[in-house]
Amino acid sequence: MATPNKYTIVFQPSGLRGKVEQGSSILDAARQLGVSLESVCGGKGACGKCKVRIEEGDYRKYGIQSSVKATTTRDEVNAKFIKPQQLKQNYRLACQTKIHGDVVVFVPEESRKGIQVVRKEATDRKIKLNPAVRKYYIELKSATLDDTTGDFERLTEALKSKYKLDGLTIDYPVLLKLQNTVRKGSWKVTVSVWQNREIVDVEAGEVKVGYGLAVDIGTTTVAGYLCDLTTGKVLATEAMMNPQVAYGEDVMSRIGFASKEKDGLKKLNDAIIKGLNQIIREITKKSGIKPANIIDMVAVGNTCIHHLFLKIDPRYLGIAPFPPAIHHSVNVKARDMGLKIGEGAYVHVLPNEAGFVGADNVGVLIAEEPYNQDKILLIIDIGTNGELILGNRKRLMSSSCATGPAFEGAEIRHGMRAAAGAIEKLKIDRQTYEVQFKVIGNDKWNTEDKNIGARGICGSGIFDAAAQMFLAGLIDKSGRFNMKLESSRLRYDEGGMAEFVIAWAKETAIDHDIVICQKDIRAVQLAKAAMYSGSKIMMNKMGVSKIDKVILAGAFGTYIDKASAAAIGLFPDCGMGCVQAVGNAAGDGARIALLNKDKRDEADYWARRVEYIELTLEPDFNKIFTKALAFPHAEDKFPSLEGILPK
Amino acid sequence: MATPNKYTIVFQPSGLRGKVEQGSSILDAARQLGVSLESVCGGKGACGKCKVRIEEGDYRKYGIQSSVKATTTRDEVNAKFIKPQQLKQNYRLACQTKIHGDVVVFVPEESRKGIQVVRKEATDRKIKLNPAVRKYYIELKSATLDDTTGDFERLTEALKSKYKLDGLTIDYPVLLKLQNTVRKGSWKVTVSVWQNREIVDVEAGEVKVGYGLAVDIGTTTVAGYLCDLTTGKVLATEAMMNPQVAYGEDVMSRIGFASKEKDGLKKLNDAIIKGLNQIIREITKKSGIKPANIIDMVAVGNTCIHHLFLKIDPRYLGIAPFPPAIHHSVNVKARDMGLKIGEGAYVHVLPNEAGFVGADNVGVLIAEEPYNQDKILLIIDIGTNGELILGNRKRLMSSSCATGPAFEGAEIRHGMRAAAGAIEKLKIDRQTYEVQFKVIGNDKWNTEDKNIGARGICGSGIFDAAAQMFLAGLIDKSGRFNMKLESSRLRYDEGGMAEFVIAWAKETAIDHDIVICQKDIRAVQLAKAAMYSGSKIMMNKMGVSKIDKVILAGAFGTYIDKASAAAIGLFPDCGMGCVQAVGNAAGDGARIALLNKDKRDEADYWARRVEYIELTLEPDFNKIFTKALAFPHAEDKFPSLEGILPK
Repeated sequence: MATPNKYTIVFQPSGLRGKVEQGSSILDAARQLGVSLESVCGGKGACGKCKVRIEEGDYRKYGIQSSVKATTTRDEVNAKFIKPQQLKQNYRLACQTKIHGDVVVFVPEESRKGIQVVRKEATDRKIKLNPAVRKYYIELKSATLDDTTGDFERLTEALKSKYKLDGLTIDYPVLLKLQNTVRKGSWKVTVSVWQNREIVDVEAGEVKVGYGLAVDIGTTTVAGYLCDLTTGKVLATEAMMNPQVAYGEDVMSRIGFASKEKDGLKKLNDAIIKGLNQIIREITKKSGIKPANIIDMVAVGNTCIHHLFLKIDPRYLGIAPFPPAIHHSVNVKARDMGLKIGEGAYVHVLPNEAGFVGADNVGVLIAEEPYNQDKILLIIDIGTNGELILGNRKRLMSSSCATGPAFEGAEIRHGMRAAAGAIEKLKIDRQTYEVQFKVIGNDKWNTEDKNIGARGICGSGIFDAAAQMFLAGLIDKSGRFNMKLESSRLRYDEGGMAEFVIAWAKETAIDHDIVICQKDIRAVQLAKAAMYSGSKIMMNKMGVSKIDKVILAGAFGTYIDKASAAAIGLFPDCGMGCVQAVGNAAGDGARIALLNKDKRDEADYWARRVEYIELTLEPDFNKIFTKALAFPHAEDKFPSLEGILPK
Repeated sequence: MATPNKYTIVFQPSGLRGKVEQGSSILDAARQLGVSLESVCGGKGACGKCKVRIEEGDYRKYGIQSSVKATTTRDEVNAKFIKPQQLKQNYRLACQTKIHGDVVVFVPEESRKGIQVVRKEATDRKIKLNPAVRKYYIELKSATLDDTTGDFERLTEALKSKYKLDGLTIDYPVLLKLQNTVRKGSWKVTVSVWQNREIVDVEAGEVKVGYGLAVDIGTTTVAGYLCDLTTGKVLATEAMMNPQVAYGEDVMSRIGFASKEKDGLKKLNDAIIKGLNQIIREITKKSGIKPANIIDMVAVGNTCIHHLFLKIDPRYLGIAPFPPAIHHSVNVKARDMGLKIGEGAYVHVLPNEAGFVGADNVGVLIAEEPYNQDKILLIIDIGTNGELILGNRKRLMSSSCATGPAFEGAEIRHGMRAAAGAIEKLKIDRQTYEVQFKVIGNDKWNTEDKNIGARGICGSGIFDAAAQMFLAGLIDKSGRFNMKLESSRLRYDEGGMAEFVIAWAKETAIDHDIVICQKDIRAVQLAKAAMYSGSKIMMNKMGVSKIDKVILAGAFGTYIDKASAAAIGLFPDCGMGCVQAVGNAAGDGARIALLNKDKRDEADYWARRVEYIELTLEPDFNKIFTKALAFPHAEDKFPSLEGILPK
């Protein structure tokens, strides 16, 4: 068989270039060459975000064959996302366009990926210290002709007599370095013991501090927290985009990629392991320690992420009845996973509740401990996937909502992720309908500087927009635009769809107006109705008519305006004083499990005792869902929003 | 830095050729090119076995620069082993001769390594079956929307209800294949469980037989026994030379190589792992199974071999007080060691007693169970190292003897290993002093076919020779040759040393007489005196004056003539009916531990309860040793040899 031809591709304005195989898509080429190009759906032609322009005029200066004819494309898919005029200007979807000759491609501003702002700070929680890995300092008698006991027995006998540790085993690579370490330390060593069972490190001399790493692997973002295991302090935080995003933005597209693409699972696994190793390198550099000093690690993620992280085939999570490979927590040697921390260190991965409620939700569970409360809690974890926990010490339920990607700013006309340039907050004047907004990366609101460089709207901005438009009367209870109001911002687009201008072209970096259109409001309605109906179904099942406290977990829960969330009806009525944003509780749960091994057992215990409710199986689901589409709800009363909601 | 020059070397008569770096020794070149060349001392210029001839006449036909001048050599070392006339003929020690140009080298017959005959057959022992790994067949209910329990929990709950197995964990690579295997088997699977604790394999459908491998890693030879874990039967045996022999024949030279050479430990470890993988490939091919079907493995070896096998630095075994890195048995994942058996399988390595009494002796211990006996047993394990066990249920002692390499045929003028062509047995007529001998690889004794192709004498032949010469009066009690006897076989060599011709040149494949010289008899005396004094010292310490039973373990113990062993005084007097050869008891011990996990605990228990006696520390050692040099002993009486010994 002949090897396929290779062609040169040049990306503008970055100038990145390289050779790719005939028949590769432009998106494939961008991934290979590290060109920043949006691809929310992972290359399926479903999101329309990877729009590029194939250059006809400019290519000669690169001395290469460039013309639209050097590509083939699926016209019907392009036509769905690209307007006829742009099609004439050679705009195409990168994922639908294949390369058959040398080409130059221009990536417009709105198709470039911003550097996502990772909003996963560790919160200040009191955590009881009882780490799974502890350090023990010991002074040994050296071997003599009268006592030729071997090094391992010498060590374990001393640990037994000084610290009452019995029946210890030793990890294989640690055994290999034992003799030299013992002698380097002149028979004084510090031993790291995991779960009072296994020696996972040995160091020469006295070493007081042990380090552990908690990681929260989100669908979109990954955060690592380096902790001092002796004080519990967070020494450094390091975050990044989940590198798996290049293969699909949401879990369903990643399950698809893993099951259908050649080496799909391997690529997704490699991506996250490589990403975590980068976090490990940077977080240790920041803290002045070595990666090998990390002697314990805990990870959380949703069930799909859990599987991809462990290199478990996620295909069955995408096929009914969606069983996970494993619920129980797992302990895997970091080295078996390719993670570059201490050679003997384990990675503890928290348990999964169900196919769609994973270890991240268990993290939330052990951080918030609803099972230790009398009050009825509703915990809403809003991320790329939405998860709900309802209950108290008597009974606990969880469910998962297909919120759609609106929370991440996807499938929204000018939606984008929480990256620099994203409108994250806004206010609409109830009389003038003038808009004040704030973009990520810029402390000022647009009232102070008209040229503020907005590029789109991220999740919290979209919800703020919907709430503000509703409160200003720009949309009614049913979400329909009120086109009778007088405002230059309120208009119809080319296709006749109502839209409202949030930012004028001059306030943007993309040279056209940023709007919220009727379809965007519908997306918000679908997302919030899913969350609301999940809560409602669980309340009905549990026989609970009123929630005592709403906890908003997840980064989104921190940035969303609580009043906006209440006004659009993200959750049933609950006094505003009873709504609390707790930040990244999943990540906190990972940190708690790192610092207190009893919480690992607690996690395994409760993960199997939370009743998972598959919402879509509920016979009343459609009815409940339909009623929840209205702002804030078609029937339910919201006494605590009295005076805030429009009459 | 310039890269070193490379030169061509051609070995004759094999014709093997290749390029080697300037300054390499001829021995290095032989190792690189796979040329069979003896090197008992591992290249230190101490054994004189790697004699080669550098060709001056023949090289032109290879079109290369060949002359003795293209080499440099250490004359003083060569002079020790090579006679002046041979030196003139360009005979040199390969390890002492470096290459500085193209050369042709001839390897004479006596310097070629024979293919060692590995004498480690599994013996027929009754072993109680209770393997560490058991298979469980289970039929699962498939996941449904009403029961979305994950695969692992589904499996473990079924194993608990059907087989009362509780708290099972699963090995990481097994978890990775769990889902697909369960579905491939239509929810019917066979699970392999290690120590009632960990799932180490899962197979689709019902699989009845599990396979295990026991390996006995000797200093010189390696044997593998493939066992059916459900019946205990040995399905196949496979043996080979220990490939580490290329780096040094005895444990001390390997410790030296590991500590001093660059990557020495890695090379020695790689060699044995590669060798075992070859055994695994061949033994499974023979049996029609796959290497992945081997789900458990047990290994034994002396302490140095144990360390090299596990890649533990053996340097401290070579420095007083000689402590091992570990006594306790270890369980290491085969994959962590690079062994190609089942992905989840463990390798169990039996415990060590002391720096010089290792897991192989523990194998002998659990095979012979002296701790369950009333009779006082003396167990002699004769290999490249000699080990002794003395005692019964009340008290047990062990010790290790520096026997020297005589048992392996090394440092004996015509000594060789137990390879084809080695004289392994012989008889000397008490009147005529005529010799009958038998060589390995030839069923006939030399009386029937004079052209029998002997190449040297192996260990058992040397002891037979010493015993027969003593019984015939050719040597006296002190080992001195009796030159007054009339025999053409009795003569002086060029240097004036007494020698006795065992095989005439015409009976050999090496065209010169094979002799036993005075120095060889001295080597036998040193070796047997070491064993005898070890036994004597332990008997004294234990307050035992008579041994009830002598057990000869090890291949050598099987091939040595029991009467010869008694006659030269290898052990204190014991009725001939009380001497028993049990074959490869160390290998049997490995097999026993493979098939019965309780014996692993027994091994750990007894390994630390046998009192190790460091013979060289005994104040009386020299006195006892000196008396033991005589045949059979200077003072001790041997009533059971009455009528056999010369008066």
